[in-house]
Amino acid sequence: MHALDIIIKKRNGGTLSPEEIEYFIGGYVKGEIEEYQMSALLMAIYFNGMTDVETYNLTKTMLYSGDTINLDAIKGVKVDKHSTGGVGDKTTLVLGPILASLGIKFAKMSGRGLGHTGGTLDKLESIPGFNVNLDMDTFIDQVNDINISVIGQTSSLVPADKKLYSLRDVTGTVESIPLIASSIMSKKLAVSTDVISLDVKVGSGAFMKNLDTARKLAKLMVSIGKQFGRTVSATLTNMDEPLGCAIGNSLEVIEAINTLNGKGPKDFTELCLAFAGEILVGAKLAKTDEEGQKMALDAINSGRALSKLKELVRAQGGDVSYIDDPSKFALGKNVIEVKAETNGYVTHMDALGLGVASSHLGAGREKITDDVDHSTGIVVKKKVGDKISKGDTLAVIYSNFSDNESVIGEVKNSFVIGDEKVDSTLIYDLIR
Amino acid sequence: MHALDIIIKKRNGGTLSPEEIEYFIGGYVKGEIEEYQMSALLMAIYFNGMTDVETYNLTKTMLYSGDTINLDAIKGVKVDKHSTGGVGDKTTLVLGPILASLGIKFAKMSGRGLGHTGGTLDKLESIPGFNVNLDMDTFIDQVNDINISVIGQTSSLVPADKKLYSLRDVTGTVESIPLIASSIMSKKLAVSTDVISLDVKVGSGAFMKNLDTARKLAKLMVSIGKQFGRTVSATLTNMDEPLGCAIGNSLEVIEAINTLNGKGPKDFTELCLAFAGEILVGAKLAKTDEEGQKMALDAINSGRALSKLKELVRAQGGDVSYIDDPSKFALGKNVIEVKAETNGYVTHMDALGLGVASSHLGAGREKITDDVDHSTGIVVKKKVGDKISKGDTLAVIYSNFSDNESVIGEVKNSFVIGDEKVDSTLIYDLIR
Repeated sequence: MHALDIIIKKRNGGTLSPEEIEYFIGGYVKGEIEEYQMSALLMAIYFNGMTDVETYNLTKTMLYSGDTINLDAIKGVKVDKHSTGGVGDKTTLVLGPILASLGIKFAKMSGRGLGHTGGTLDKLESIPGFNVNLDMDTFIDQVNDINISVIGQTSSLVPADKKLYSLRDVTGTVESIPLIASSIMSKKLAVSTDVISLDVKVGSGAFMKNLDTARKLAKLMVSIGKQFGRTVSATLTNMDEPLGCAIGNSLEVIEAINTLNGKGPKDFTELCLAFAGEILVGAKLAKTDEEGQKMALDAINSGRALSKLKELVRAQGGDVSYIDDPSKFALGKNVIEVKAETNGYVTHMDALGLGVASSHLGAGREKITDDVDHSTGIVVKKKVGDKISKGDTLAVIYSNFSDNESVIGEVKNSFVIGDEKVDSTLIYDLIR
Repeated sequence: MHALDIIIKKRNGGTLSPEEIEYFIGGYVKGEIEEYQMSALLMAIYFNGMTDVETYNLTKTMLYSGDTINLDAIKGVKVDKHSTGGVGDKTTLVLGPILASLGIKFAKMSGRGLGHTGGTLDKLESIPGFNVNLDMDTFIDQVNDINISVIGQTSSLVPADKKLYSLRDVTGTVESIPLIASSIMSKKLAVSTDVISLDVKVGSGAFMKNLDTARKLAKLMVSIGKQFGRTVSATLTNMDEPLGCAIGNSLEVIEAINTLNGKGPKDFTELCLAFAGEILVGAKLAKTDEEGQKMALDAINSGRALSKLKELVRAQGGDVSYIDDPSKFALGKNVIEVKAETNGYVTHMDALGLGVASSHLGAGREKITDDVDHSTGIVVKKKVGDKISKGDTLAVIYSNFSDNESVIGEVKNSFVIGDEKVDSTLIYDLIR
């Protein structure tokens, strides 16, 4: 078998055999196949795609390129939830405690923020003392004990994806459905959870800008997951505007606490309940999505979900007093209200622009080695469909910089005000 | 400017600016842009192509990536002739002496054989003593003196092409019209000849299998050359069967000598006269192709062209007695006649198969560092359209190996014998 023949086969629209995929990807991970041959194949895949069978085989090869994590020592239904990345997405902080309070084992390995998207680990580290670096035994013990733990991904998991993703990132081969699907699913499947719930974000602030493409990705990922014997669902959700109102680490934790107190933004609360509902069905703890959603709402209203968040924070060394009194969180010392300059309705929001603005405030990072400022960010006060009068506060910026002119401009430009009220859809579709 | 943005622009079907092409190719040659980014761009170009303006700019950037060769010190009309590579193509050995005998300055830098195609340097080195490694001053002096010299390409010429071609060769990005055109033309234009004549081979033994694609390539190369102020023509010629009868280094030199003696194969003689005719028109030494062809035929019939070959051989240290008496050339010691097993007509020949078979006899090389055996090869005795009776000799193999079974099979399989006589076209088109 020769790498060049495989490149030419894919370039000419052929279908790669499992052996060819294994030879190429395995060889690449071992350093036997050169980066320049891999990037040529990736670009050929970008143009000619992969069949579902090829994508399954690619996922399988990547999945077994390194260690896998066996969670059999955790008793009960183990659930993982993954978002393709958006702005203001603090779902894990609310959904995890809800599910854990209902008996589900929420054993979550999360990532850090990059570019305009935030990361769950950064958000949790806003809570003083919170430690995301537990070893695997401690992680498993904690999930057995209190049903929930959130830690960082181990570096030995799916090395093929790390190497491939770095290469795709610099060769213009990121935006390929089979490559995205295999990247996400290899990492999900490398951990032996029973139920995998995928949040495929669609819109200006998401990786997928287009609903049809996002649907293809979602269906492909569900199909791959099922072939590995997992219960998988994918929800297509709106990322044309931020999720909820808060963007930035401490601000998002505060919004999550508020949500668990029953005082969260309408869209964010609804999304958390929807995910909880379908996951409870997947875990066979509810018969219908509606029944699952009612159980989740009860978990919030009874205070059990909030208690579970406090248990999580305590177990991982965090200061629980911050959960009881969110006003303790340090926030950016310069608080700037961005005002509307005209009357009308918010017809569109640039979620990407708001994510970038938040990153410019230090809440995000451009390179994975950058530090983040947990105290800064943006809280939007108006969302798509809201009526606006001149002088209304559109958003509040929390900054530690003295010069905020350009960020103010970015936030202002992220709101499009028009004459007609438009409706915003939160959830487009659920694929299971 | 960022390499990634340029890859994505081309991937998305955009047109690269001259600055972007210069930035990327210049950066690549200097080692500032990585191989894996170059190969991703090459594959994107394979799929999305390049406009004629982009190809012109790519050619220009490559052309100026290293030294250029100024031939102004040579007085008269300087001519270069290039073939895209075929089997049995010894045109330079006949065309060069014809043109030089008619007053044209034939200052030729040639290459070596690789894969199934031979190289002029290897053929000339069949003549004992022939030295292809002259320095530039000696080369120029010789052309001024006797109108002809044939030497190897200098390594400082178009380093961008050397680096790019090596990468294309291992990344499945060879077969791209703009990349082929810029590769060939940058090398031709780096030498300041006045008239460039291109032989674009089409067929099973050529790089271009398809007439339409070959025509596109030919038109593009002619257009690029004209934009650089050169007189350029491209002839589309048949490479579905070998050119002439001899394949292999000494065998081809012998056939070239026979042709200059007026006893060459019909197709090969006709091709040499056709090229001579159109080059003489390009050089303004003839008014029409027909007039030029008549001048060339006179050069053969008068013996002036053969004398010029001897002058060339003598000037470059070769033993001229071999030209006077070609029976002096050592040939493979095992001479095997391949016989027809059926009656009929030759309806098709596998030129590639014959080139590969000749290479297997040691006449060609698989890697550029391999040695070649100048004495081996194949002489075909029948060509497309010829009538065959069972037992006729189809070809004669000259081998230095004791076991030739597999090569005999390859040669035999290169002849397709059918019931109906078919015609073969030698020259498809001339583009100028």
